[in-house]
Amino acid sequence: MELGSKKSKPSSKNKWLLSSTSSKWLKQAIDNPIEILIDHANCERKAAGVAIQLMFRYLAEPGLAEVLSPLAREELEHFEKVLFLLHARGSCLKQLPAPPYGGLLVKNVRKEEPSRMLDSFLVAGLIEARSHERMTLLALHSPEEELRDLYSDLLRSEARHAHLYWHLAEERFEKKIINSRLKELAVIETAILSNLHSAPRMHS
Amino acid sequence: MELGSKKSKPSSKNKWLLSSTSSKWLKQAIDNPIEILIDHANCERKAAGVAIQLMFRYLAEPGLAEVLSPLAREELEHFEKVLFLLHARGSCLKQLPAPPYGGLLVKNVRKEEPSRMLDSFLVAGLIEARSHERMTLLALHSPEEELRDLYSDLLRSEARHAHLYWHLAEERFEKKIINSRLKELAVIETAILSNLHSAPRMHS
Repeated sequence: MELGSKKSKPSSKNKWLLSSTSSKWLKQAIDNPIEILIDHANCERKAAGVAIQLMFRYLAEPGLAEVLSPLAREELEHFEKVLFLLHARGSCLKQLPAPPYGGLLVKNVRKEEPSRMLDSFLVAGLIEARSHERMTLLALHSPEEELRDLYSDLLRSEARHAHLYWHLAEERFEKKIINSRLKELAVIETAILSNLHSAPRMHS
Repeated sequence: MELGSKKSKPSSKNKWLLSSTSSKWLKQAIDNPIEILIDHANCERKAAGVAIQLMFRYLAEPGLAEVLSPLAREELEHFEKVLFLLHARGSCLKQLPAPPYGGLLVKNVRKEEPSRMLDSFLVAGLIEARSHERMTLLALHSPEEELRDLYSDLLRSEARHAHLYWHLAEERFEKKIINSRLKELAVIETAILSNLHSAPRMHS
């Protein structure tokens, strides 16, 4: 079963995702709230790291750092909010074995420029879009009000992040090229998630 | 000649530095305000990168991310302020060949833990302390009010950063060990800066 069957086709709000998250993932996530919180904190930290890594790689690219630096700050703010809640629940950060999702997506970033830049924006945007979709589910369906409130709060700004990566791509590449490459990457993204990973993660 | 001869010995406010910056550096910096601004933006970005790198390396270390994440955000805010002024002056970011300073200091970080952690905190703190000392000089002596205001503004929060690294060390290591290792690293830091690097940089 697909959750939110109205959204089984990508809506106008979400040009990124070719598939909706399954109810199996939501059940796995809801059954393991602490592990998902820890993984979520790690995802926010990694997202800040990706933005900063892109700022380093394309240092002299006009208009890039102006977008990525505030985005990285926002990811870190979210990281701190999740960390605060983890502490309040007597838990703490730890390294969790990563699911294959991020690594497999990054393997599809082409090596040569400018394709590398386009793919980097699109992979980052896809991950943001999937995170946003799944956080929306957690904001709606988490049994605890505190968790629903946390995810709703984070969503308000998180919604913009995929759009920012889209906009960075649009400023630098032809729309036809972006759409064609996004389609290829989105097929891969959906394929990676087609089998639920055994460990509960934001991207299991 | 040493600038601020009253400060030729480390003051109580600055336990880090064994030497004061020379007037030669200040002249070089003041004569090249744009190059120093570009380098300063790069330094703020790198400082954010260092804080995030340490968060990644010591992910499960209690009480570390809680300090380093807000610090990284503040460095990024400073980066954005410097970038804004650069744009206002018709200039932009670019990669500048780095002076030997940072690379030589990092080479002195020991490889094995927990020495690696201590050295990483102390090297980061030393760089912050030197940046703070030199930004203070620029806030006092830059001929342009706009630049004096920028550096004064950044200083207000920057002053805390070296202290945060000190505090992270103090929470985890004996004071005697910290002081002894800091002295060794501070001697190296002063030696690196004893000859003015030919290109104008925050750490030339």
